[in-house]
Amino acid sequence: MPITSTTTDELLAYAGLARVCEPPATALSQFVTREGPVAAWRAVIERRAPRPVLAGSAARVADLSWDDARRQAEADLLDAAQVGAELLTPADPAWPAAAVTGLAGAVARGVTGAAPPLALWVRGRLPVRLPADGVTIVGSRACSPYGRRVAGELAADLAARGRAVISGAAFGVDTAAHYGALMARHPGGQPATVAVLACGIDRAYPEANRELLDRIAADGAVVSEYPPGTRPARHRFLVRNRLIAAFGAGTVVVEAGRRSGTLSTAAAADHQGRLVMAVPGPVTSALSAGCHLLLADRFAHLVTGADDVLTALGGHRAIEPALFPATDATGGVSGARVLDRPGSDPHHPTDGLDADTARVYEAFPARERIAVAELVKESGLVAPTVLGALAVLELHDLAERQGHLWRRCRPGRRPVTGSGGPSGPAVRSADPPPRAQ
Amino acid sequence: MPITSTTTDELLAYAGLARVCEPPATALSQFVTREGPVAAWRAVIERRAPRPVLAGSAARVADLSWDDARRQAEADLLDAAQVGAELLTPADPAWPAAAVTGLAGAVARGVTGAAPPLALWVRGRLPVRLPADGVTIVGSRACSPYGRRVAGELAADLAARGRAVISGAAFGVDTAAHYGALMARHPGGQPATVAVLACGIDRAYPEANRELLDRIAADGAVVSEYPPGTRPARHRFLVRNRLIAAFGAGTVVVEAGRRSGTLSTAAAADHQGRLVMAVPGPVTSALSAGCHLLLADRFAHLVTGADDVLTALGGHRAIEPALFPATDATGGVSGARVLDRPGSDPHHPTDGLDADTARVYEAFPARERIAVAELVKESGLVAPTVLGALAVLELHDLAERQGHLWRRCRPGRRPVTGSGGPSGPAVRSADPPPRAQ
Repeated sequence: MPITSTTTDELLAYAGLARVCEPPATALSQFVTREGPVAAWRAVIERRAPRPVLAGSAARVADLSWDDARRQAEADLLDAAQVGAELLTPADPAWPAAAVTGLAGAVARGVTGAAPPLALWVRGRLPVRLPADGVTIVGSRACSPYGRRVAGELAADLAARGRAVISGAAFGVDTAAHYGALMARHPGGQPATVAVLACGIDRAYPEANRELLDRIAADGAVVSEYPPGTRPARHRFLVRNRLIAAFGAGTVVVEAGRRSGTLSTAAAADHQGRLVMAVPGPVTSALSAGCHLLLADRFAHLVTGADDVLTALGGHRAIEPALFPATDATGGVSGARVLDRPGSDPHHPTDGLDADTARVYEAFPARERIAVAELVKESGLVAPTVLGALAVLELHDLAERQGHLWRRCRPGRRPVTGSGGPSGPAVRSADPPPRAQ
Repeated sequence: MPITSTTTDELLAYAGLARVCEPPATALSQFVTREGPVAAWRAVIERRAPRPVLAGSAARVADLSWDDARRQAEADLLDAAQVGAELLTPADPAWPAAAVTGLAGAVARGVTGAAPPLALWVRGRLPVRLPADGVTIVGSRACSPYGRRVAGELAADLAARGRAVISGAAFGVDTAAHYGALMARHPGGQPATVAVLACGIDRAYPEANRELLDRIAADGAVVSEYPPGTRPARHRFLVRNRLIAAFGAGTVVVEAGRRSGTLSTAAAADHQGRLVMAVPGPVTSALSAGCHLLLADRFAHLVTGADDVLTALGGHRAIEPALFPATDATGGVSGARVLDRPGSDPHHPTDGLDADTARVYEAFPARERIAVAELVKESGLVAPTVLGALAVLELHDLAERQGHLWRRCRPGRRPVTGSGGPSGPAVRSADPPPRAQ
């Protein structure tokens, strides 16, 4: 398939830049704004860009020639075109400029990990007025029938009243929200629903949602800031969450456990001056505990349906957010951690690790062994940082070296005190499922 | 059964005063504080008290001789003694002085209907430190299995951690809370639960809770400010609610519909500077809608269990309450009405009536016809007021004259527009069940 007439040097430059940086790329984003995409791309590939910019791209630029970079960018545009996707750039009239303003504002206020996307791969079409006409709906993948019902009805009611639903593509609340919006449709024929991916636009994750993603692309939009082929990884979900929050005037959390990754979307929404809302549920359900924390601490407005959401948004002007503290580089984790209460929950393997080490841990594939060079590319961190992180992970039994390759380990569960009970002594598994959405 | 040695002129005076006034009796309460109970009683019976005091008692003093008044007071003390109840007066060391301070404060701030009780009929024993050691738990009579479970567990957990549960004696949440507290018991042997009645201490309402009330009296306390024999009436539930709120450091609403009488307890708690808390539930349940209103408007703190309640109370100091506007004379209705949203619910017959007319409406017995003189006594309003109210009620088809007697009518339901459907044309029933708890 030939590259379309919209293929320009700028388009190639954005595709090339997207390939060599790992979002969120704060320094690069500012550099592109200052120098323009074409000059910025060349400066990056030729390693002439300022040091903070190079630091974010060095891992993937390493020994990339200018010709290789150009071929890769062309290939990415072709790969995208083959799944019906285009690269939307800030120069495009359809660029959601108003939606990403909140991200720029967050960056200006010193929030780390809030950089706007350089460009967006899009299948389908975005609603014209974002974030004004969008409402973000997020919640647990493993939601209850209650959460599924509430998400579906809320999305359907919002779509029927002219709002587009913004969500991820996970099972549970995301899926229920998209189906609800698709069934109701937008009365004005505008796109009713938008899915923002944490992987390449040409991938379906989870695979079982491939058909849903096709339907969303046909009636609305599937969006990603990652180049084609990018695999989903935990840190990408957290980074992606800032875009889910950005595209809606407000974010509604339908169901979320105490440590749900969903809470990072709430934090991101708050950082961008978006309204945070939560749906209460039975206090006997652990799946509503995260919503109740948001409500109890008055981070979130309580909403029970579309009427409440529209009323709350009607009375909401984007404000200087002050509720959540600034996040770390993974785009919201430390914000969400504020909501943790001591002794309330089991630990996550990366608890207590610094952001870089956690990012390397999450860069591991689920089952396979991986070379350091691959980890460098996958994490977007430079080799010395990755090696330092591996040493820390090895020390904590979270990774082990096997010849020239490394594999991730699941930390052993603590044996039950005074018993040789079912959880027994430390057990390792190489397959920790991704947790965050 | 002889009157015990605690029978003094003061005790008789309080019993006599309780007999001739309808709580809340603001002017009388202040008069008693100023003159002492014995002098106040005599002044009331001899119609020498100030006009505002007499206005509140005239209906029942009418042609009462001093000897009759004294005999009635003695009879009340005897009737109470026969069910194991005593009259607790402000002179008694067991008087819950700290609990009623909030009521005095509310009166001082101009809240109508907040007068402290003159005295309290008590079966059993009150916790020593009220309100500090009390937590009020209220909610719908027609609660869901969810509400019943949450109320029971919350009460049990609070009782096990040394708090006494305060509630009414209705079915549903009240009953579940008492059973929970009785089953868990207080670790220090203090009374675990207190039921405040809206009828005479010698009555069981609802009758099916007679055994529960006996158990509460054995292990905790049953309390009423109404003289023996007083029948429950809607306005008494609303007036009684201020005492339920007064005895707890905070009030937890477990389940409540949008127009639940329970919300008047939340309003009363707020008026007295008590913490208002609410338990969320499924947004698909109408029985949680009142809780969600309280939470959405941030009248109430969200609590999910005993830990949350104790944490919230730990951080709460009684403050000048400003959330709810002042109530009318029925002790909280107008406060609760703030929470109503237009077009959300069916009308109650007394909507739009002034407080006195509503009180007369509620003074009617459920099924029988009644003489004006009886309505005067039952409502505690003077004859001209009652006659004026009857005229208004007749005008609204809410009461009808039958010879010398009156009966209450249930207002016809509006026929469904354009259909002769199941609700059909106006139907009257003389048996509107009491709604408020």
